[in-house]
Amino acid sequence: MSSAISIDESGTVVPPGKLFRRLREAAGADWAAYVDHPFTRGMGDGSLPIACFRRYLIQDYLFLLQFARAYALAAFKGETLEDMRRGSSGLAALVDGEMSLHVRYCAEWGVDEAAMIATEEATETVAYTRFVLDKGVAGDLLDLHVALLPCMAGYAEIGAKLAADPATGDEGNPYRSWIEMYSGVEYLDAAAAETSYLDHLWDRRGGESRFAGLARTFTAAARLEAEFWSMGLRAE
Amino acid sequence: MSSAISIDESGTVVPPGKLFRRLREAAGADWAAYVDHPFTRGMGDGSLPIACFRRYLIQDYLFLLQFARAYALAAFKGETLEDMRRGSSGLAALVDGEMSLHVRYCAEWGVDEAAMIATEEATETVAYTRFVLDKGVAGDLLDLHVALLPCMAGYAEIGAKLAADPATGDEGNPYRSWIEMYSGVEYLDAAAAETSYLDHLWDRRGGESRFAGLARTFTAAARLEAEFWSMGLRAE
Amino acid sequence: MSSAISIDESGTVVPPGKLFRRLREAAGADWAAYVDHPFTRGMGDGSLPIACFRRYLIQDYLFLLQFARAYALAAFKGETLEDMRRGSSGLAALVDGEMSLHVRYCAEWGVDEAAMIATEEATETVAYTRFVLDKGVAGDLLDLHVALLPCMAGYAEIGAKLAADPATGDEGNPYRSWIEMYSGVEYLDAAAAETSYLDHLWDRRGGESRFAGLARTFTAAARLEAEFWSMGLRAE
Amino acid sequence: MSSAISIDESGTVVPPGKLFRRLREAAGADWAAYVDHPFTRGMGDGSLPIACFRRYLIQDYLFLLQFARAYALAAFKGETLEDMRRGSSGLAALVDGEMSLHVRYCAEWGVDEAAMIATEEATETVAYTRFVLDKGVAGDLLDLHVALLPCMAGYAEIGAKLAADPATGDEGNPYRSWIEMYSGVEYLDAAAAETSYLDHLWDRRGGESRFAGLARTFTAAARLEAEFWSMGLRAE
Repeated sequence: MSSAISIDESGTVVPPGKLFRRLREAAGADWAAYVDHPFTRGMGDGSLPIACFRRYLIQDYLFLLQFARAYALAAFKGETLEDMRRGSSGLAALVDGEMSLHVRYCAEWGVDEAAMIATEEATETVAYTRFVLDKGVAGDLLDLHVALLPCMAGYAEIGAKLAADPATGDEGNPYRSWIEMYSGVEYLDAAAAETSYLDHLWDRRGGESRFAGLARTFTAAARLEAEFWSMGLRAE
Repeated sequence: MSSAISIDESGTVVPPGKLFRRLREAAGADWAAYVDHPFTRGMGDGSLPIACFRRYLIQDYLFLLQFARAYALAAFKGETLEDMRRGSSGLAALVDGEMSLHVRYCAEWGVDEAAMIATEEATETVAYTRFVLDKGVAGDLLDLHVALLPCMAGYAEIGAKLAADPATGDEGNPYRSWIEMYSGVEYLDAAAAETSYLDHLWDRRGGESRFAGLARTFTAAARLEAEFWSMGLRAE
Repeated sequence: MSSAISIDESGTVVPPGKLFRRLREAAGADWAAYVDHPFTRGMGDGSLPIACFRRYLIQDYLFLLQFARAYALAAFKGETLEDMRRGSSGLAALVDGEMSLHVRYCAEWGVDEAAMIATEEATETVAYTRFVLDKGVAGDLLDLHVALLPCMAGYAEIGAKLAADPATGDEGNPYRSWIEMYSGVEYLDAAAAETSYLDHLWDRRGGESRFAGLARTFTAAARLEAEFWSMGLRAE
Repeated sequence: MSSAISIDESGTVVPPGKLFRRLREAAGADWAAYVDHPFTRGMGDGSLPIACFRRYLIQDYLFLLQFARAYALAAFKGETLEDMRRGSSGLAALVDGEMSLHVRYCAEWGVDEAAMIATEEATETVAYTRFVLDKGVAGDLLDLHVALLPCMAGYAEIGAKLAADPATGDEGNPYRSWIEMYSGVEYLDAAAAETSYLDHLWDRRGGESRFAGLARTFTAAARLEAEFWSMGLRAE
């Protein structure tokens, strides 16, 4: 998909979607601190301690459960059958597909599902997930999707950057499969579809006076995502 | 307050608030059918059967309970302390003030509170109140206030029209106190404050692309209000 | 499935599920008035005017859109991955499957989707659907599923009764396919699965003190379903 | 009020309310870690750095805004006029009274309202407040009030303990007014009223099968409250 996130020859990120571009720019240093974090750099060069990655994987499982609820909320808030189908397919993709993939992936790292379910949510996990859900409940479909955006678009940017970075370790890097997943065509296309849907929502429910509030939501969510990485780092 | 709803010398209604004016115009015949309904005309000339008015009073009690919930929802959805204070004062005005006034007024018509609580909500009562609440839950603060508007602004228009109409009965009209309440300065000012707050919300969260959807909400709510009158008429 | 609704040799309905049985009994005449309605009897003997059935089909389309939102809400309110998967599959079944089936079925009756989307929701459609959604939003997963129950379990009971009734017309009855769908194994099993899940929710979140409130919800929903049939009848 | 929290002659806390007692016991060490935290001990003996207290005050302002939303949600979820009045008075007490008191109190510490509004919510503030709101949105009135309980009942316990503790500094302790507020009759009575209302909600919507889930909510909220104190400590 030509509109997916990409890295040009000078190493500059070319983000898809008009609204995403504006929000990303408005978030400035907060966005940079999230997509270029010691945790992600540690995945890139393979120096991230395994304990930190395990902590992240476990909390990410608990995070995905709440993210599935956000897609359910999007379906509930749908104004058209098309909106509802998008929410429904996002929800089903998570609870039927990604959760199981995640569980299988975690098993390779020696983490089983029962252990993940039994783990307490970290404060950072609670903060980010419930912030997104609350923005969605209190606001409208556009507020909800803007709060969700740093997750999907940010992971695509992180994946694309790490994959394009010559410093990213190859053969021996234990995090190579993670990087491949998030820089893969399937994921980048999904992220591009989300930024394109967001532009559609902006056309339908947006207006310049809403931009400042949406930018605050996006920036706060990016900061909470960065806190999520930092939580992983504190495992060791 | 100069911006309250008024009736000019030619008998034309002059509605306050930019957004209310546009929504009212977009609702066209549906708005007219609500604010100039056989039920309201029957109050004007005193011909409305008492049983119809009692039916209306009882259902209006059940309606106010749900409307109080709508103001609570507005406070919950508030983005600023000012939004929350408006929601809170609307809620308190209903549960501490208007509900008690309504109960006292109903007592004059031989209807007591226990009987009203024990009465089933009519289908029309459920439809209108839950439609408003759902618009508010699914959408944002602007969607919620637009759904609430036909009630407050419509009653002000009905009150002002009946008070200005030479055909409205005087001394002997049993509905005179109702007309005086809704054409009184206090009520008209409250309605004007609501239309002015709505303009503020529109400036903050609106945009031309939202107008068509808001007009559909407003028109649907006006139709459901007209159904509420019709429900009263069916008592006899 | 042995636990599906059935009609014994004496013509008595044997409902599945402990909680459904209690709620159904508590609803008494209101339940009877819904599952044995002039509209359903008219489908049984084929005397229902086609215009009434068309009106019903159109409003049922608008109804299903809102019901899909109720399943999305159930997924959002899920406390476990299993809860969320149930909500998700109910939602997907509606927006991906049943809506399309309904559209194809309606086409056979000369009603197309664009016409249905363009039709206003009847007051009765608004009342029932938003009542269910509001119960679900204000209460918990158990409140939501009890409010949803009269639809699924009621249609199964109506289907089973009509199919077992010797008075139900055969060959020439234009409503035969409708009766076959709702008395078919697939539908009865889905209804039985719902009553069984409800018993599970009751075991998890119930308590005797909740029964009276749940019975009021169930009874109110059954009455609103009966109003939905009556709305169909008023087409002619 | 005889049922308020108290400290007996042996220094043991005597908590009011049947459900609060059970939840408090179930939370065990998590409860103890919240109500006997280095932050609160530092207020008791006056050793808490002023910068930590200021950080707490500022975040507490942002916290109260969200707590007001929780009371609005309680009013919205009310099943009776009495429920709604409780939610309404809790909301009004916050937005009309406590917020202003808090602002005046903060002014004494050299922190003004504009600065507080302009401060970002800490991750810990987001986590606790949105957790409570989400529990309330996803569950019912009982889930919401259980999530709210650690705040009100915990502060009463902290206030009562510090006031009864001979180690608590007197004249020169800068935190004396804080301790007096939360150990005062007015606050302890309000907390006792909340525990008593909670017992009423439990009688109405509870059931033994719900206890484990409610205890998980209460314990998680207590842990998030302890994190809130720790956030304050990290200011210096």
